[in-house]
Amino acid sequence: MSDAPTTGRLVLVPNALDLGTEPSPLTDVLSHAAIARAARLNHWVVENAKTARALLKRVDALVPLAQPLQSLQITELPRPRKGEAGSQIPASAWRELLAPALAGQDLGLLSDAGLPAVADPGAALVQAAHEAGVTVEPLAGASSLTLALAASGLNGQRFAFEGYLPQSASERAQRVRELEQRSRREGQTQLVIETAYRNQALLEALVHLLQPDTRLSVACGLTSPGGFCLTRRIADWRRHPLPTMPDRLPAVFLWLAS
Amino acid sequence: MSDAPTTGRLVLVPNALDLGTEPSPLTDVLSHAAIARAARLNHWVVENAKTARALLKRVDALVPLAQPLQSLQITELPRPRKGEAGSQIPASAWRELLAPALAGQDLGLLSDAGLPAVADPGAALVQAAHEAGVTVEPLAGASSLTLALAASGLNGQRFAFEGYLPQSASERAQRVRELEQRSRREGQTQLVIETAYRNQALLEALVHLLQPDTRLSVACGLTSPGGFCLTRRIADWRRHPLPTMPDRLPAVFLWLAS
Repeated sequence: MSDAPTTGRLVLVPNALDLGTEPSPLTDVLSHAAIARAARLNHWVVENAKTARALLKRVDALVPLAQPLQSLQITELPRPRKGEAGSQIPASAWRELLAPALAGQDLGLLSDAGLPAVADPGAALVQAAHEAGVTVEPLAGASSLTLALAASGLNGQRFAFEGYLPQSASERAQRVRELEQRSRREGQTQLVIETAYRNQALLEALVHLLQPDTRLSVACGLTSPGGFCLTRRIADWRRHPLPTMPDRLPAVFLWLAS
Repeated sequence: MSDAPTTGRLVLVPNALDLGTEPSPLTDVLSHAAIARAARLNHWVVENAKTARALLKRVDALVPLAQPLQSLQITELPRPRKGEAGSQIPASAWRELLAPALAGQDLGLLSDAGLPAVADPGAALVQAAHEAGVTVEPLAGASSLTLALAASGLNGQRFAFEGYLPQSASERAQRVRELEQRSRREGQTQLVIETAYRNQALLEALVHLLQPDTRLSVACGLTSPGGFCLTRRIADWRRHPLPTMPDRLPAVFLWLAS
């Protein structure tokens, strides 16, 4: 009774990794604790409301939601307009999104796949939470990046995630060569992703651009049926017909120069 | 009956993240699928046999092991002698470790915490599996690196894991400054780890070495009771007494220059 009102937490809720494919059982990817914690959260900030509701329906089938789905407060993360960086969104917008936590309610953060704020939006909200004194509680969950890295057999003691490569062919070629040199010099595995419908074009470009001795790995749909991870030296990639990459499934491309 | 004998898989089994602390319920971190899959594996290659048996006992309490713990085949990964790189271990040694998979049995790979082969040994065995045509099956699981990154609020769209910094003070200072410059230039969050008993010394060194505007985050024991993630600008770290870092718990140190 005499307790002062306490601040809620910002709970980082992992999503499954089956975006773009048939949903696998949620228990293939999420811990029971994460599923049960998600079922108790009534306030959400999410990358995409439709994807979030789809996840919450799958949660509800395993652990009934504390409140009906319709009555949950689900707000989408603001999207920077094209060509604007995320930092263009005023700090006050992030603070407003934290309102439930500042009023004492736990607030879930969820992206479309894997961990929020890792190769996904949400970091600015986490930053705002730190600045506002809101405790950040990350629930254990998988990221497609570290899963691909483990499966690749490439160096997991030193690696870098670059995000997306430039779209212009000449800028892309230059960046790939820079990253290949850094990989050789520092023994650092390089990871990039691409919009799914450009997966095939990126694979072709990398097989063309990288040095024969460099090992290139492609991971796609890991944890889903039909998921795969292939690792070969570029010389071997060139000797075989390239596999047809799924054009709706996110993939991770990794290389390590020797 | 007419099926040809098939090759077993190399199954990458995630471990919990509570090394060095009181064990949390396994269901806090691992999916039911990972726990059930681990219970069915009779052949293991592991970072440390004692740690592996401890995990398998926790698995057994949730999903009974297919064979008694005593009858499982558990082999430790070869350790390079001091000063030798992992590549000094002959390729034939990795091939021998794959023998159960080549004979048709699934083979588990397990490290002391989190994902095998990510900031942990095992990549050479995964590489050998790719070369021998053994399918690699990564089970979804958490890595302390991506969990720390999500919790930090630093840039998760571009980041690099450097492993351990040099131990010599002057080499360390030089490397920290190089990585800070790269962070500023590329917007790349830098992640490093340290042997637990040197956590405090590394925190002090980073607060001393980095620029006042750089944001430094320290994550320790995430997913365990008492775990924390603190993110502050260096100027703010300098204004407050530094927290006492646990000297037996692994920590992740992250920074992003602005």
